[in-house]
Amino acid sequence: MEISSKLLEKAVAEMSQLPGIGKRTALRLVLHLLRQPVSQTDSLAQALQELRTRIRHCRECHNISDSDLCEICNSSRRDRSLVCVVEDIRDVMAIENTGHFRGLYHVLGGKISPMEGVGPQDLTIASLVEKVRGGEVRELIFALSATMEGDTTNFYIYRQLEGLPVTLSTIARGVPVGDELEYADEVTLGRSILQRIPFEGSLNR
Amino acid sequence: MEISSKLLEKAVAEMSQLPGIGKRTALRLVLHLLRQPVSQTDSLAQALQELRTRIRHCRECHNISDSDLCEICNSSRRDRSLVCVVEDIRDVMAIENTGHFRGLYHVLGGKISPMEGVGPQDLTIASLVEKVRGGEVRELIFALSATMEGDTTNFYIYRQLEGLPVTLSTIARGVPVGDELEYADEVTLGRSILQRIPFEGSLNR
Repeated sequence: MEISSKLLEKAVAEMSQLPGIGKRTALRLVLHLLRQPVSQTDSLAQALQELRTRIRHCRECHNISDSDLCEICNSSRRDRSLVCVVEDIRDVMAIENTGHFRGLYHVLGGKISPMEGVGPQDLTIASLVEKVRGGEVRELIFALSATMEGDTTNFYIYRQLEGLPVTLSTIARGVPVGDELEYADEVTLGRSILQRIPFEGSLNR
Repeated sequence: MEISSKLLEKAVAEMSQLPGIGKRTALRLVLHLLRQPVSQTDSLAQALQELRTRIRHCRECHNISDSDLCEICNSSRRDRSLVCVVEDIRDVMAIENTGHFRGLYHVLGGKISPMEGVGPQDLTIASLVEKVRGGEVRELIFALSATMEGDTTNFYIYRQLEGLPVTLSTIARGVPVGDELEYADEVTLGRSILQRIPFEGSLNR
């Protein structure tokens, strides 16, 4: 698509660097901004720049945070003996949204993946081991994705923690609540049978 | 979705004001920016702000432009006696991309739509009539969308121009090149039969 204005072309080019935004979508977004008051573009630009320059990572859990210690780690109402290990901050949000977890998190920043050149030293594993050595953590819940890389990462951390007085657990895998059995994939259904749990009548909260 | 960081929340809220960008997509885009160098966010923000504050509208055709007169109106290689009337600047780009039009454009900025409160005075119709009165325009091609609003707008302009020495035409409607007849909608197919043209053997350029 040929764009006659250099200013427009530049804005579209920058916008289309975002993932999933092609040139056509970028053009639509930028033309939308042109129809809105200048203030909207200003506040968008400012919000992005402020975020990018002022955001920090929590020194405890490595979640992104406005300050040195994130709200979750700073809260007196969270169970400090329970730590959930996740890949990235979106997982933190997802688990927080369930309202079923009152412990702390530890954000690894990815998973071990030799294919993508991500080794243990690229993740916050050392800091996790350190935290467990501190002795306050009673249970570590692995909530990494159920892939080869996720399993490798779990196993690597498990080896690092050997001998330390901490219980390790992993989130349950199984058929999603509300799903029909016939549509579940075989691996998931197989796991949910092997890892069946005692029937107690009132599982749904 | 609960977001713990105020900075992140602000950025996501601003981003999700864009059309077609929901909160989840906005979060994905913003987190992507966080993983990229600061410079990328800076140049995106700057490009948007520069565009929004420095862009002008061409005083002749009302297309957006970096200067007072757009490249098309400024070009000595365009036929000034032929003016194509379009709704917005995306239509200009679409027609330019065909490479089949060497005249000038006139961007109305929308179409008459009482339902949406858009009247003739909200569009650049007066400036178009002025231009035709100037006497340089020999033919006006209507390229508005084939909807009730488009037809109303065409008719309104036609009435305004009555008595002026200008030929009016409208772009051809019909079955798209390469499409199977059986998949064409009835209205389009009907029009393409009623408005059939002499067969000359070499229509495809």
